[in-house]
Amino acid sequence: MITHSFTPEKYFNVFGTIKPALRISPGDRVITTTLDAHGYDQDMKKPGASGNPLTGPFFVEGSGPGDTLIVHIETASPNRDTGWTSSVIADHLVDHSFVRELPQKDYLDWKIDRKKSQASYVDPETGKTVITLPLSPMLGCIGVAPSEGQMISSRYSGEHGGNMDYRGFREGTTAFFPVFQEGALLYVGDGHAAQGDGEPVGTGIETSFDVQFSVDLVKGKRIQWPRGEDSEHIFTAGNAAPLEQAARFALTEMIRWLGTDYNMTIELASIILGQATEFDLANLFNPLFTAVCRLKKSVITNRGNPRE
Amino acid sequence: MITHSFTPEKYFNVFGTIKPALRISPGDRVITTTLDAHGYDQDMKKPGASGNPLTGPFFVEGSGPGDTLIVHIETASPNRDTGWTSSVIADHLVDHSFVRELPQKDYLDWKIDRKKSQASYVDPETGKTVITLPLSPMLGCIGVAPSEGQMISSRYSGEHGGNMDYRGFREGTTAFFPVFQEGALLYVGDGHAAQGDGEPVGTGIETSFDVQFSVDLVKGKRIQWPRGEDSEHIFTAGNAAPLEQAARFALTEMIRWLGTDYNMTIELASIILGQATEFDLANLFNPLFTAVCRLKKSVITNRGNPRE
Repeated sequence: MITHSFTPEKYFNVFGTIKPALRISPGDRVITTTLDAHGYDQDMKKPGASGNPLTGPFFVEGSGPGDTLIVHIETASPNRDTGWTSSVIADHLVDHSFVRELPQKDYLDWKIDRKKSQASYVDPETGKTVITLPLSPMLGCIGVAPSEGQMISSRYSGEHGGNMDYRGFREGTTAFFPVFQEGALLYVGDGHAAQGDGEPVGTGIETSFDVQFSVDLVKGKRIQWPRGEDSEHIFTAGNAAPLEQAARFALTEMIRWLGTDYNMTIELASIILGQATEFDLANLFNPLFTAVCRLKKSVITNRGNPRE
Repeated sequence: MITHSFTPEKYFNVFGTIKPALRISPGDRVITTTLDAHGYDQDMKKPGASGNPLTGPFFVEGSGPGDTLIVHIETASPNRDTGWTSSVIADHLVDHSFVRELPQKDYLDWKIDRKKSQASYVDPETGKTVITLPLSPMLGCIGVAPSEGQMISSRYSGEHGGNMDYRGFREGTTAFFPVFQEGALLYVGDGHAAQGDGEPVGTGIETSFDVQFSVDLVKGKRIQWPRGEDSEHIFTAGNAAPLEQAARFALTEMIRWLGTDYNMTIELASIILGQATEFDLANLFNPLFTAVCRLKKSVITNRGNPRE
């Protein structure tokens, strides 16, 4: 296994087919950093443009359309002691009749205590700590170059992944992406120290991250939507609007996954998913919404197999 | 406290302004039973019509429009050893391109082991246990008579509650409903021994239930959507289509709740909800979808209060 220490020189605000920043091989590890969503790094310098600047793209040797890229997220955590959020629930996330009640939007600074693994909002006028939350770091953006030479904004999501703002793309998770372009072209960015389900204020606690990952490849295996696996769950992420279409995509991808990798008929997958599906709402803020279908691995393993 | 042992004689497939089955007072307790969604009781007799027949309505003395009804769900659990489910993911819960792949829908019987607190599906051809899941009993239907003399099917949901199919309406939860009619007219039914998020096959493990609850009243307190509280969370349920509108209703109701009962400005509620909201997808199957906004009570109590 080769470990690449990669210091980004340029950042991109799209997922697309761009000249690779680094070429790596299946099995390789990358140690790198990401900027916050406004383009600031750990020293509060601003080498990237606002709007989810991305680190990458990483060209994975030997990968091409129709393959599946595997990304083991080994580290994804804040590398500085500050983050920021929007201050007010987004207009389009409350009922229309309530929008007039909302105050003006502002940006607020949070303190990040990496040792204690918590984030605090301190009222700048009173100096009082208003709220302290446990850190729950995640990569808001992760994905590959999309199909057909598309260049898709890092505000959006799609079959390629993108700005999914899902808390499951975190340290310890293995992520899977469909490969659409030669080299896959992996991008990461938009670290959140914490984030509410649905991303109600339109941001997490936005900050710069240290990221370490390794990659693998499944040649000739075609998946349709991003997938993930952690110690307890497997999950599938659908990105679409309306939100129920995102949920449909995620649930359909899960049925496919249970068929190909766990040898389940659609009947058996239905019996299990019908009563054991867990759904996460990742974001309702972005132009396309993200719904995630999860299934406990214990449910899959503790079963008989009618195909046998 | 008066305890009423109530044996239903008739069942209704609507939430509406119907002659009360029983008159109770705030503080009273009711011990009763509910039928399964096809109308069968614990002895597999069928005294109710298919399609979520409801037990009630219970007239709560002293309640009227503009009040809030409080329902402490003390018991909600299967009272027989069998349940049934649909066998196949619903057509409208998979991507359109996948509908043709789905097999014909059937009904399947599950065994319910109340002692071990688990449910099993046994393949009727092989006699083998296909899957065993922990029981997670919930009331698919709970709510009051809706506004303006509406009679709303127990397949639907709304501001009155109804067929929300949310796993949070369970033993140990305190539920809150807006009162629209004199006496509130509370209904319960549609017990599920377990159910996946989103109700992907269109049913839980449907069975008859023993239910025990007590009621209270807050005079002159108007809420807009069903709410709930358990040992760890408070939650609000929005019922609408598209699903993002259900989520908007739930989030807006949570902001209102934090304002009136927890003395939070919209700014403070935003700061907390932005990073700590949890969202549950209750059902995507019913004509109106249910999204639930939750907040850990520990997040609310572990904070400073800028209003002080």
